[in-house]
Amino acid sequence: MTEFPHPFDRAIALEPQGSDRFIGRTSDDYWNAISPYGGVTVATVLEAVMRHPDRIGDPIAMTANFAGPIQAGELIVRASPARTGRSTQHWQIELTQAGDPQPLVTATAVFAIRRKTWGDTESKMPKVPRPEAFQRYPLAMAFPFLERYDFRYVDSSPFAGTEESVTQCWVGDVPSRRLDFPAIAAYCDSFIPRLFVRKGLASQISTVSLSINFHIDTASLSAVQGTFAFGQARANGFNNGFYDQEGKLWSEDGLLLAATHQMVWFKD
Amino acid sequence: MTEFPHPFDRAIALEPQGSDRFIGRTSDDYWNAISPYGGVTVATVLEAVMRHPDRIGDPIAMTANFAGPIQAGELIVRASPARTGRSTQHWQIELTQAGDPQPLVTATAVFAIRRKTWGDTESKMPKVPRPEAFQRYPLAMAFPFLERYDFRYVDSSPFAGTEESVTQCWVGDVPSRRLDFPAIAAYCDSFIPRLFVRKGLASQISTVSLSINFHIDTASLSAVQGTFAFGQARANGFNNGFYDQEGKLWSEDGLLLAATHQMVWFKD
Repeated sequence: MTEFPHPFDRAIALEPQGSDRFIGRTSDDYWNAISPYGGVTVATVLEAVMRHPDRIGDPIAMTANFAGPIQAGELIVRASPARTGRSTQHWQIELTQAGDPQPLVTATAVFAIRRKTWGDTESKMPKVPRPEAFQRYPLAMAFPFLERYDFRYVDSSPFAGTEESVTQCWVGDVPSRRLDFPAIAAYCDSFIPRLFVRKGLASQISTVSLSINFHIDTASLSAVQGTFAFGQARANGFNNGFYDQEGKLWSEDGLLLAATHQMVWFKD
Repeated sequence: MTEFPHPFDRAIALEPQGSDRFIGRTSDDYWNAISPYGGVTVATVLEAVMRHPDRIGDPIAMTANFAGPIQAGELIVRASPARTGRSTQHWQIELTQAGDPQPLVTATAVFAIRRKTWGDTESKMPKVPRPEAFQRYPLAMAFPFLERYDFRYVDSSPFAGTEESVTQCWVGDVPSRRLDFPAIAAYCDSFIPRLFVRKGLASQISTVSLSINFHIDTASLSAVQGTFAFGQARANGFNNGFYDQEGKLWSEDGLLLAATHQMVWFKD
């Protein structure tokens, strides 16, 4: 299966329009229940910085806050460097839509030129068979973005109704696509909501804030093997309308790509 | 030992100055090596929202990015609501200093009015003796802010030089002080840097981005027992100039207070 450009690249495509301003468009391919899939929104926010002519280095950390419901149509992304040091750069980003004066997404990002240093990975990828050893999880709901991801659970059913919300699965794009920073950002929101795992069914939820810490740089990312990522996620707590989700992603060859954390509004 | 107001309250004190603008001052009590202790800066950013007349609800999630070195003296904190929904409110915050046109801290926060829902804590506090069972860890370095915290390690030395960076300790204010949202935000940066744990010695580091997910609300917080928090922290990975740190905090009676994540620049 080949499509050019990949639906993901079309979904996050931005047209520069003057200083710090980019125009995008929501994607039917990545539509969720009532708004775009959040992972693609996070990737679009990141893409604005990646494409900015003043950007230095690679993404180190980013946070995107989902402030209001994005409508189908044109997106305006404003990304501006708040402060640039010798090797570190801080960004402020906002996503708006015409006719709505207030931001729909507020975000910050830290980029940096990395240097060679001592390194070690404490969170090693669990030893699991390669993605080919597992079946693609059948679509549980009819939201378009789910057709764009190939989830392969390695040890549990996602709608488990268990007492602990841990899940482990391979995730890849459909059709398959190389791993890059926007794809990783999008994968960070792809874990099945922890509430669904606990309750064994889908219910009303909405991510309010998502953070990503990136553990790879451009050079190591361009050398990773395979197009799947291995994801592990869990919740620390559910309390009075909000719960959290922590996730980690590794490449097929076991490189730690990112750790991610989000807070999610829920209704029970 | 009694001091009124508590040095922490003096350190995060803000004077409203027109719409969305607050004036503070760096604190000698919480000075670090060359700038204020980052935890107090995060608490000051949060305090600006807490004190804002338009604020609704409790903090749910916040991210503060350390963009430049704060100098001793006056702080200008601008906190403005980006979007306010029925029960959720998104904030953008910047900390600047006179004579420096660019932000020294960029931050976002999500606040919300919580509702009673089903809840569960998956990350339970480890079973450990109460803080009284342990000695205060002797100050390892002569930075003033360290005198303002009482760390009591329960199972390891902080400068361990081990292969895994996990530490577990009680942390409390000196003099002791009730737990509130700013104190919890400050505790989130109080974990000994993971690099020091791994290397067994202090070296040059600097947090670039810190996020907090809050798991308690005002009502449950006002009912917690004790003034210490129990903290557990670890790193996922160290790679080419940056490493991460993940931490959790519980109250003395075992309530999950917050989970926190930061990315740290380091030199080796």
